[in-house]
Amino acid sequence: MSEVVVLRLGHRPGRDTRISTHAGLVARAFGADGIIFVNYEVEGIKESLEDVCERWGNSFFVKGGESLRDVIEDWKSSGGVVVHLTMYGLPVQREISKFRGKDMMIIIGAGKVSGEIYEISDFNVAVGNQPHSEISALAVFLDRLFEGKELDREFSGARRKIIPSESGKRVKEIEE
Amino acid sequence: MSEVVVLRLGHRPGRDTRISTHAGLVARAFGADGIIFVNYEVEGIKESLEDVCERWGNSFFVKGGESLRDVIEDWKSSGGVVVHLTMYGLPVQREISKFRGKDMMIIIGAGKVSGEIYEISDFNVAVGNQPHSEISALAVFLDRLFEGKELDREFSGARRKIIPSESGKRVKEIEE
Repeated sequence: MSEVVVLRLGHRPGRDTRISTHAGLVARAFGADGIIFVNYEVEGIKESLEDVCERWGNSFFVKGGESLRDVIEDWKSSGGVVVHLTMYGLPVQREISKFRGKDMMIIIGAGKVSGEIYEISDFNVAVGNQPHSEISALAVFLDRLFEGKELDREFSGARRKIIPSESGKRVKEIEE
Repeated sequence: MSEVVVLRLGHRPGRDTRISTHAGLVARAFGADGIIFVNYEVEGIKESLEDVCERWGNSFFVKGGESLRDVIEDWKSSGGVVVHLTMYGLPVQREISKFRGKDMMIIIGAGKVSGEIYEISDFNVAVGNQPHSEISALAVFLDRLFEGKELDREFSGARRKIIPSESGKRVKEIEE
């Protein structure tokens, strides 16, 4: 199985904490194996995400990284590709097939992304060439990468499982 | 042409402003006609979104709504359907075909959503049954509703247009 890891670039303190947590939830829910946050305090976010994994299942890692360059170079030297999601890149709808089955690091930004990221990445890919959100870009990218199959995936080791309903909330609690 | 409108439920002040702005950007970028924010100060968000429309094109409306019930009842009485996105709903991958070509209001929540919304909506639909984000749920729902065609859409009246690039940023400024 190929490994898919999300690298979230440092956010602006206070401003983007919720967005970073959402990015982690999306990475997990849409089938990535983990998320790395570079250049910021990851404790609160890590806790929220680990809490979700404990209740809803699956192994998913959350890590803080010290140096952006080291994290990326390590990944590349192990043979993985690096894909940077940006509204300036090539269209996901034309590019996605070449990424399937590869070990991949997906970089998502926060605010202005430095030119270095465009250079260091193997591919710059756009989910539409309009401004929207790193959260939506990541979700649609993963949905297309996994061809929608991630939505039907079972999450192992869950303590709770939703029974899809026409109306209201049905949750099955799973005994250990 | 059918009309697709997003209704964003009131957020918690301070905590969700960025998320609400992202929700508006996603609605616009993925082909909805407008977004309505119920129960909160919409001025700052409206300004950001209108600024994006001015630069990047297309008509897209941003409105504040006073009463949730009135907004939804008005919509229903004009013949539109109401779809609530929730992790507890029926799978989007099974449900989506029935929504194509319909006038539709898509409700997205913020934090805990009251039981009333599940009742008042015609359909409760899940983009996966895992916790993630209203932003990603909205993006993937619209991407599937429009079958990916929204990513190739031209935005009329834009002052700037991206030329998709392998690396770096290429933007064409359009003279009036």
